[in-house]
Amino acid sequence: MPLYLEDFTPGAVFELGRIEMTRERILSFAREFDPQPFHTDEVAAKGSIYGGLIASGWHTCAAFMRLFVDGVLSRAASLGSPGVDEVRWLKPVRPGDVLRARYTVLAVEPHPRRPDRGTVRSLAEVFNQDGTLVMSLRAANLFSRRP
Amino acid sequence: MPLYLEDFTPGAVFELGRIEMTRERILSFAREFDPQPFHTDEVAAKGSIYGGLIASGWHTCAAFMRLFVDGVLSRAASLGSPGVDEVRWLKPVRPGDVLRARYTVLAVEPHPRRPDRGTVRSLAEVFNQDGTLVMSLRAANLFSRRP
Repeated sequence: MPLYLEDFTPGAVFELGRIEMTRERILSFAREFDPQPFHTDEVAAKGSIYGGLIASGWHTCAAFMRLFVDGVLSRAASLGSPGVDEVRWLKPVRPGDVLRARYTVLAVEPHPRRPDRGTVRSLAEVFNQDGTLVMSLRAANLFSRRP
Repeated sequence: MPLYLEDFTPGAVFELGRIEMTRERILSFAREFDPQPFHTDEVAAKGSIYGGLIASGWHTCAAFMRLFVDGVLSRAASLGSPGVDEVRWLKPVRPGDVLRARYTVLAVEPHPRRPDRGTVRSLAEVFNQDGTLVMSLRAANLFSRRP
């Protein structure tokens, strides 16, 4: 039985899984989508303010999304998302970092016009293997109500 | 000569290039990062509220980033970004859509502690081939001042 809107309550916390940010994936994501030297060029990255290669912030978003799908959305009556607020890239993500994530429900709102669905507002936090918060974001997701 | 902080002034508009969202790339991005059926499974997508396959919103973000790097950051003294506000996925992006983007400078702020750099706050808008606004986001980017 999937998770419906009613299964999300303010304060509920979902601990999500882990994902490794390998050097190879950092480079391949950045070459396709964010070819700035500190994401794609180890030598240039060493000379940058980051002191070495770092993942594109969008790669960290995408990696979080994978954890969120695997941990929550794949077993929920998800209807997509209207957007995301306040993505904060707080610390660099470096090759070999193993990220984990936490999803906390902040609010549950009925849809203004569609009684069969509603919005879950959440805080997502992504930590590295040292427990350092590397990214946070505030998301909104649409879910069906229980039929 | 790269673009420095001083080269961004409120109201300035940068028209960025185009990028095609092919079916193959929509599927491969979603299989890796956002494996929800309406992103990865054409049959399931047809039966969903979207009526067909749509790109992951994070894929649209990443595609915008590529346009922004190619059009602006690759010729600018970019120092990265602390985050993004208000990502709005306004309309579905479908296979074959050709996206273009516009970057508008909203504000330029000195860094509170580092006189050698500052923040550009911007509105980014992504349109499809019909001129429909499919995504908007409010971003912040750090740039070096002119030496």
